[in-house]
This record gives sequence, structure tokens and C-alpha cells, in this order.
Amino acid sequence: MYGLAGAAEWPVIQQLLPDLEGKRIVDLGCGFGWFCRFALEQGAAKVLGVDISEKMLSRARDMSPSAIEYRRADLETLTLPESSYDLVYSSLVLHYLEHLAAVFAVVHRALVSAGDFVFSMEHPIYMAPEHPGWLLSEPGTRIWPVSHYAEEGRRTTNWLTSGVVKYHRMLATTLNMLIRSGFILCQMEEFAPTQEQIAAHPALAEERHRPMFLIVKARRDN
Amino acid sequence: MYGLAGAAEWPVIQQLLPDLEGKRIVDLGCGFGWFCRFALEQGAAKVLGVDISEKMLSRARDMSPSAIEYRRADLETLTLPESSYDLVYSSLVLHYLEHLAAVFAVVHRALVSAGDFVFSMEHPIYMAPEHPGWLLSEPGTRIWPVSHYAEEGRRTTNWLTSGVVKYHRMLATTLNMLIRSGFILCQMEEFAPTQEQIAAHPALAEERHRPMFLIVKARRDN
Repeated sequence: MYGLAGAAEWPVIQQLLPDLEGKRIVDLGCGFGWFCRFALEQGAAKVLGVDISEKMLSRARDMSPSAIEYRRADLETLTLPESSYDLVYSSLVLHYLEHLAAVFAVVHRALVSAGDFVFSMEHPIYMAPEHPGWLLSEPGTRIWPVSHYAEEGRRTTNWLTSGVVKYHRMLATTLNMLIRSGFILCQMEEFAPTQEQIAAHPALAEERHRPMFLIVKARRDN
Repeated sequence: MYGLAGAAEWPVIQQLLPDLEGKRIVDLGCGFGWFCRFALEQGAAKVLGVDISEKMLSRARDMSPSAIEYRRADLETLTLPESSYDLVYSSLVLHYLEHLAAVFAVVHRALVSAGDFVFSMEHPIYMAPEHPGWLLSEPGTRIWPVSHYAEEGRRTTNWLTSGVVKYHRMLATTLNMLIRSGFILCQMEEFAPTQEQIAAHPALAEERHRPMFLIVKARRDN
């Protein structure tokens, strides 16, 4: 599994994306640039990929046409020109940011009026637990041990490397922050694999027990 | 604990309510009429309480001034006059309804343009589990056993009487249904008791581990 098609939630994200033809697009946390190249292939007029990892950006540049601009920046201190983009996209990075409201403000300002903001992040049901990990309940059912849902803030996990820091927020907190930043919520999805996906990848079945990803489409209100 | 003040989530609901002075209000699932009387005391111009239980409505009428109208109706087949209300309120009944989209359509039609819809319902984190009930994890932490989150539909529980039927929906399903019905999401809250509430009622502490109630404020868009 590799690139966009390797992400089980990609079909859901695609449904939320506007037509990219002729659009000016920023990808916050672009990694190796998979989405940036997809956007260019779909006819985007301008594509900017931003990431904090120079290593990933270097690889992204190697794999991309020069029409895509890559910029190294910390998303929490990033600045973007005003009313200059039609779509801001971000896949699975916002839960690493402590100051999300500041990022939402930058995105709002960078979008044209009625511009789209489509992002995915880890779902708070997935992030909340003190001890994230499946348990088997008495009757043999797989359960996800939700705890500390209302205790927002740092969560340290061991994913890829040990001691990775993420920031748990209640779902209401993220949505209210979006609304207060001047966005209108257009659609929200909580990723669950389809029966077709499970048939192809049986290990995905457990993902129907609790949502791992939140996918949001919002529109700049004014 | 009794009436509105007896509900731990009432302070949160109050923050979401508009000024009721002069407003025309419907309470869907009014029970004994506590909110209807509160609305009248706050200066509402017109108050209609709807419930399916004649027993509760009879008690509501006994306790209420005649200015409040009570009507027996099944919320899933209720009709209301068009553009006739400024606020539709509903507390902890919508999760009992199988056909929520039909109710949202009736509410949308009954509200004036920019009218408010404020409701609470059981949170899907609370409703999803096959076996709802606290578990103690190995290190002694209280956990809520989320499972079957993506499997929407009937849940049978034993609350007050045995075999009570509720309908679990993913949070995304409820919000998207609202948006497709022509509402704009204004604010969402996931009830968690404050430290002051826990000091007064220590048993509430566990409610910070997972949200029991969802509270939503939406506005008729057009």
C-alpha cells in the first residue's frame, strides 16, 4: 500500500474534495507530495506543499514536476498570502499541533470567500484513551477503551518512533473552533471501512468498532 | 434533583439558548413541561409542548398556566405550521426516533428563517457499545467500551423499563442530516461536568471519561 490509494480513507476524502481544475491549492503537511501531484494531475492551477520535514520535502521535490512549489515551515507559525487559495487541504497532521486555532485563522485568511478547507485528523475517540489499544470484552467482542475524553491536551504514543506527542481535543472543540474562525461546516465523516474494503483487507474490519479518522469539509463563510 | 436544574447538562443548554423574550417556541418531547414553563417565565410569546405520553402531558397541564399549549403526538408523524416558530427545542428524545431526517425536515419547515434549533440527545459514544457500562482497565482506570460505532440502528437497553429501544447514529450522520435539511451548525457541545459540579456531586466525575450527551445549536439557513 503506497501513496494516496494506500490510505483506506482516501475514497471518502475524494468525495469531499471540490473539482480541482484551475484551483489554487495548499497542502498543509504534504509529506512526500502525493496529494500535491494528484492535484496537479487534476488540473490545479497552482499547488503549494508545506511540511516541517526537509527530508520529506527533498523526496517530494525529487518525485514532482517543478510546477509544484514546496516550502519548509512549521504549520503553527506559517504565514500565507491573504485570499489567495481556493482549497486548503491537510491530511492527518492537525492532531500534532498544539495551537490549532492559530492554524485555522491562517487558513481562513488564505482562502478566498467560499473557499474550501478539507482535512482529516485522528478522531478524538481514537485519541482520548490513556491506554489506546484494543481490548477483548467478556463475550469476545473487540472494544476500544475510551477514557479521559474531556481531558484535552497532550497524548504521548509510540507510533513509528517512541514518544510521539499529539494533542487530543473533543470533537466539539474542533468544530466550534472552526465555526468561530469563520467557517461553515459543510460535511463531516467518521471513517469506517466499507464491506468491499474489508473483503479485500480483512484486518480493516476492526475499524468499524470505533472511528480512527475524522474527515471535515468546511467553507470560508465570508 | 428535580426539573431543569436537576439535569447536569442544563447550564450548557442554557448557554446555547437564544433570548426567549417574545419568541414562539416548540418543545419536542416536553415531558412534564419543565422547559415550557421556563420559556413562559422568560417571556416567550407562545409555547407549544409536544409529547407522545398522555400521562406526562396530563401532569404537565396540571402544573402549567393555560397559556402553554400541550399536544399529544408522535414526533415521527408530527406536523407543524410553516415558518411559525423562532425556536424548536428538544431534550433527550431524538435518539428514540428511527426516522430523524423526517423530524429535521418538519423542524426546518416550522422555523422562521434564521430560527434556532437547540437539542440534546444521547452521545453516539455512549450509545454505540454492544454492552454499555463502565469497565475497569488493568491499571484501575475507568473505561467506556466503545464497539460497533459504525453499525447504526437499534440498540436495546434497560433504562427505567426493560427493552427500551434507541437508535444509534454516528455523530457525522446526525450532523450531515442537519446540514442536508438546511441547517447551519452554530455550536456543538459534548457534556462533561465541571469541577464545581463534581465537587457538589462526586458521582459525576466518571462523566469526564466519555460524553453522555450531545448538545447542538443549529440555525435555519434560508
